[in-house]
Amino acid sequence: MEPVDRYFASTAAPPYVAVIFTSLRHLEDDAEGYGRMAEDMDRLAAEQPGYLGIESARDGDGFGITVSYWRDELSAKAWKADARHKVAQTHGQEHWYRAYYVRIATVTRAYAKDVPHTEHTA
Amino acid sequence: MEPVDRYFASTAAPPYVAVIFTSLRHLEDDAEGYGRMAEDMDRLAAEQPGYLGIESARDGDGFGITVSYWRDELSAKAWKADARHKVAQTHGQEHWYRAYYVRIATVTRAYAKDVPHTEHTA
Repeated sequence: MEPVDRYFASTAAPPYVAVIFTSLRHLEDDAEGYGRMAEDMDRLAAEQPGYLGIESARDGDGFGITVSYWRDELSAKAWKADARHKVAQTHGQEHWYRAYYVRIATVTRAYAKDVPHTEHTA
Repeated sequence: MEPVDRYFASTAAPPYVAVIFTSLRHLEDDAEGYGRMAEDMDRLAAEQPGYLGIESARDGDGFGITVSYWRDELSAKAWKADARHKVAQTHGQEHWYRAYYVRIATVTRAYAKDVPHTEHTA
C-alpha cells in the first residue's frame, strides 16, 4: 500500500487558503499529454512561495477535484498568474476541459484521522 | 455523455461554506455497502436546510475528495450532527477509511466555464 502522506496535504493549523478546482475532462482527448501537463503543474506549484500542498482525485467518468493549499490569497493569486501555469490553463480551456469550476476559500477549521503531521487539528 | 450538471454543484454567488472531505479507503472492505451508504448520505444531505450542493471524485487508488457546499457554518454543523449521518461517520471511521481529513472553509470568490447557472461567477 502507498503511504498515506502520498495522498494528503499535511497542512498546518488554519487559517490558510484552499483553491478548489473541479473539472470535467474530454476523456478522448490526449490522455498522455494531459497526464504530463498535470504532473508538471503539480511540481511547479510545489516550488511557489506560500505553497502548502495539493490533493487530487479523478474518477472514471473524467470528473476530477484538485484542491491546492496556500499560505494566503496573495500566494494563490501569484500561482494563477504564473506564466507557465497560464499556458497550461489556456490549453486546458481549449482542449482538455468540457467544464470547470474554481472556488477560492479560506479554511477556518480542520480535523483529521490518521493523517501524519496533523496533531494540531485534534 | 452525462449532462455537465450531473457533476458540478451549481452554487450561487459567494460567500458560502465548503466542507472539503478527503479520504483514503480500505478498498478491500465492503465496496457495495460503502456505495449504498454514500448514496444514502448524498440524498440525505440534499434534504438538509442550507444545503447548496455536493461534488465528489474518487480515483482507482481509493483516494477521494468530496466537497459539500452550505449556506453557512450553522447548516454545515447541523449536518455533521445529524443522527443518521453520525452513524455513517462512526462506521466510516471503524471500517471504510484508512485516513481522512476534514476542512471547513468559507468560499470568497468563484468562477466557472461552461457550468450551467453560474453566470454570477463571471
